[in-house]
Amino acid sequence: MKTLSVPGVRLAAVESGIRYANRLDLVLIELAEGSESAGVFTLNAFCAAPVTIARRHLNAVSPRYFLINTGNANAGTGEAGIRDALASCDAVARECGVAIEQVLPFSTGVIGEPLPVAKIIAGIPAACEALNAESFDAASRGIMTTDTRPKLVSRQVSIDGEIVTIAGFAKGAGMIKPNMATMLSYVFTDAELSKATLDRLLREQVNKSFNRITVDGDTSTNDCCLLTATAASSARVEDDEGTCDPLFEQGLAEVFRELAIAVIRDAEGATKFVTVEVSGGKDSEECLKVGYTVAESPLVKTALFASDPNWGRILMAIGRAGLDDLDIDTVGVKLGDTPIVSNGCRDAAYTEELGQAEMDKTDIVIAIDLARGNHTETLFTSDLSHDYVSINADYRS
Amino acid sequence: MKTLSVPGVRLAAVESGIRYANRLDLVLIELAEGSESAGVFTLNAFCAAPVTIARRHLNAVSPRYFLINTGNANAGTGEAGIRDALASCDAVARECGVAIEQVLPFSTGVIGEPLPVAKIIAGIPAACEALNAESFDAASRGIMTTDTRPKLVSRQVSIDGEIVTIAGFAKGAGMIKPNMATMLSYVFTDAELSKATLDRLLREQVNKSFNRITVDGDTSTNDCCLLTATAASSARVEDDEGTCDPLFEQGLAEVFRELAIAVIRDAEGATKFVTVEVSGGKDSEECLKVGYTVAESPLVKTALFASDPNWGRILMAIGRAGLDDLDIDTVGVKLGDTPIVSNGCRDAAYTEELGQAEMDKTDIVIAIDLARGNHTETLFTSDLSHDYVSINADYRS
Repeated sequence: MKTLSVPGVRLAAVESGIRYANRLDLVLIELAEGSESAGVFTLNAFCAAPVTIARRHLNAVSPRYFLINTGNANAGTGEAGIRDALASCDAVARECGVAIEQVLPFSTGVIGEPLPVAKIIAGIPAACEALNAESFDAASRGIMTTDTRPKLVSRQVSIDGEIVTIAGFAKGAGMIKPNMATMLSYVFTDAELSKATLDRLLREQVNKSFNRITVDGDTSTNDCCLLTATAASSARVEDDEGTCDPLFEQGLAEVFRELAIAVIRDAEGATKFVTVEVSGGKDSEECLKVGYTVAESPLVKTALFASDPNWGRILMAIGRAGLDDLDIDTVGVKLGDTPIVSNGCRDAAYTEELGQAEMDKTDIVIAIDLARGNHTETLFTSDLSHDYVSINADYRS
Repeated sequence: MKTLSVPGVRLAAVESGIRYANRLDLVLIELAEGSESAGVFTLNAFCAAPVTIARRHLNAVSPRYFLINTGNANAGTGEAGIRDALASCDAVARECGVAIEQVLPFSTGVIGEPLPVAKIIAGIPAACEALNAESFDAASRGIMTTDTRPKLVSRQVSIDGEIVTIAGFAKGAGMIKPNMATMLSYVFTDAELSKATLDRLLREQVNKSFNRITVDGDTSTNDCCLLTATAASSARVEDDEGTCDPLFEQGLAEVFRELAIAVIRDAEGATKFVTVEVSGGKDSEECLKVGYTVAESPLVKTALFASDPNWGRILMAIGRAGLDDLDIDTVGVKLGDTPIVSNGCRDAAYTEELGQAEMDKTDIVIAIDLARGNHTETLFTSDLSHDYVSINADYRS
């Protein structure tokens, strides 16, 4: 595989011993002068100190550095957490000769413990030294926690003969129901894009990707998703009205979608990749309500783990989703292409064998037709396995 | 132990082979003429056929018989399910010489499979034959599914020298987040109470007991809770304005509360009994929102299972509960009597040892102070263990 790079982006991942020895746990990313970035951040009220600072700095100036640590979330840490996040930014600013506002801090790990800021500051000179255009892979590994594999996706599109690159990485396997963003995700392009367009693109793409996945319904305190354009390419991607080349937008959409799907495929303890499609809704909101209730139902998720076509649990979850005046006699449910429920009860042609064949698959599609409108939403989720319990019962041990 | 009975109530539990051989799976309850009953039923839109029929019959006349089967929920069964539920009622009505509307049907078990109505009808003569005032224990066992033990609670109160008895039983261990009722629960008293008073008492008590428990957030299609007064006692419990004797109301409250707590203590795979108290809320609704988000968070529940004082997950759950303008810098959290979080971050006196000592207990109290109002709500829940996954992955096997 050709080493990936995005002109205008340099990265480094180092071991700073934040929680464990011999583990890449500190990532520094440098953006070329002239880069623009957009960000979305968790809506969890207990947002982490670095989220508060990153949001504040991003509103002030165009960032030049992202500093990311694992092993400690720096959340639930009050004023001390804010001071620690600022101290980390300050260390990067001094080492690299930029203003403190040009550094965005990000943290992921255990909530509620003081950030070991001295170890982070001590690791920064080595990280600056190691900055390299071809360290995307190392950086994508350096932000992993319970992830079992890095999530790194890229696309190249040709616009008027010029190559534009889009590359991004993400981490996250549990505490995943992103709300406006995901655990941690960074997408870069060498295209030149205005701040306003970056903001629009980021929100549009996040709402079709990271904001459509759930592992456990638990929204992290540290979710952040950043989109950066370095302007290193001379391709004209955006016109004067802020409209983007459709090939570019398509490439960007693919990168976001593949990263979001990669998070679900690596969900804690997952043995199944589950797509929940809800159609026939009066609006998006009710499709999402039904979709999330099914996707997060412990009983649906344990049946998926068991490959058990116990589809009554899907009906139960649809029924408790809280839709006004749902006429259950019109609801339809399919597993893959197999009709299970038609007009609110078991399809005449359904057999246990047909249901079993669908549930035995690793990739399962639950398609729900509410039959009362024209809206559709699609979510991605995982099953609830023994390994999910083990991973989360043992996480701090 | 003295055999329990409530004058005016006779019960029977028989084996009818609905799903498994050699298992009590059909319960018949006879109420003396002159009894009044009140009922609350699931708000799940996919409510089961017997729920539809029980609600309809209860609105029409005072019931004389309850017929309860396990092994099959008769939910998601459409028109055929309605016919089957009516056929079961009809068989009781013919055997016992009452109108079909005087029989209320109840079912619990797998959703979506046709009710084996022939087996139920075949079991009815034996059940009628076996009706007995002292079969409360057998009846409470006869409605069990994944329950590991029966839940049977009684109280006697003396009113003006007359003894009044209150006794009830419930079943349920999973798919438990009752919404207006619980899985299946029946409470009986020999007091004389008007229908209006029974309705009021039932709603008040359910909202303080069964509507404050959650195992997995999954609301059953078959939840029903019935309160019956047989009027066999001559004690004057209710005055002309419908006000009840406070001793009686207290006894009733204790029966409901103990039954609800018994369901949580027997929750599927539970190793912990967890009380979530939310105080300082602006209204009950926001206390419940925070309480349920914490009580149903898979990450909080797996930390409880591991006895891990990973209290950051509690903050995460509070933060994602969706309260408007929550000032996290005023929030306090205690585990038992140990302050964990004060003013939004780790309490100055907190140590890991103190937290560990609280989490090592079997009965854990999570007390959350939102510090923005005067409302309080208390919920009861369980942890998320390997056994929960095993029980629900294997339930149909």
